[in-house]
Amino acid sequence: MPSLSLRVDLDPQGRIGPGKIELLEHIAAHGSISAGARQMKMSYKHAWDLVEEMSRVFGKPVAEMQTGGQRGGGARLTPLGLALVARYRAIERAAAAAAEQHLKALQAEIDAA
Amino acid sequence: MPSLSLRVDLDPQGRIGPGKIELLEHIAAHGSISAGARQMKMSYKHAWDLVEEMSRVFGKPVAEMQTGGQRGGGARLTPLGLALVARYRAIERAAAAAAEQHLKALQAEIDAA
Repeated sequence: MPSLSLRVDLDPQGRIGPGKIELLEHIAAHGSISAGARQMKMSYKHAWDLVEEMSRVFGKPVAEMQTGGQRGGGARLTPLGLALVARYRAIERAAAAAAEQHLKALQAEIDAA
Repeated sequence: MPSLSLRVDLDPQGRIGPGKIELLEHIAAHGSISAGARQMKMSYKHAWDLVEEMSRVFGKPVAEMQTGGQRGGGARLTPLGLALVARYRAIERAAAAAAEQHLKALQAEIDAA
């Protein structure tokens, strides 16, 4: 089946696509940037840079470090980070549902061409 | 206002995004690959390569050359090329309409954060 990949362009300059969202989801699920980076098969530095870039663009952190305790060095998403993930996935679902018939028709036109 | 950029992933491996669609539209509007390339501020070779790549991936040409006559060297879209443009734009409109409320809400969440 054909499918959509979405990039959301936000004011004034923030861009969110599937890679950043997946990274945020892995950070939330595994509780640290390093574990999120491993899941994405990217370097810790690259994951950190992506998190920093999002936080800078949106003017507030998308993740916060948790120091001390048994899991010192962990990280979790802020309310902004959680909102980005939830809204992006909702946008993706709404767009996919709205586009479904057009996608099927386009695939049929390609197959018949 | 926040907005969406879409990439359509088609079977078995075709990917169509805003750049390729805009190039096809310029080729259709101006009647040649070279004029389309100029409108996109890309080299003729790059435009040609994109057209060839799409034609290869979809197994049929997306544009055809028109030789001879007063406008020798021109090009126009094939039915497949026209279908790609029309469906992509329809998918884009449907997705944008479906996502509008989520996009507005996300922008508000970012502005409030």
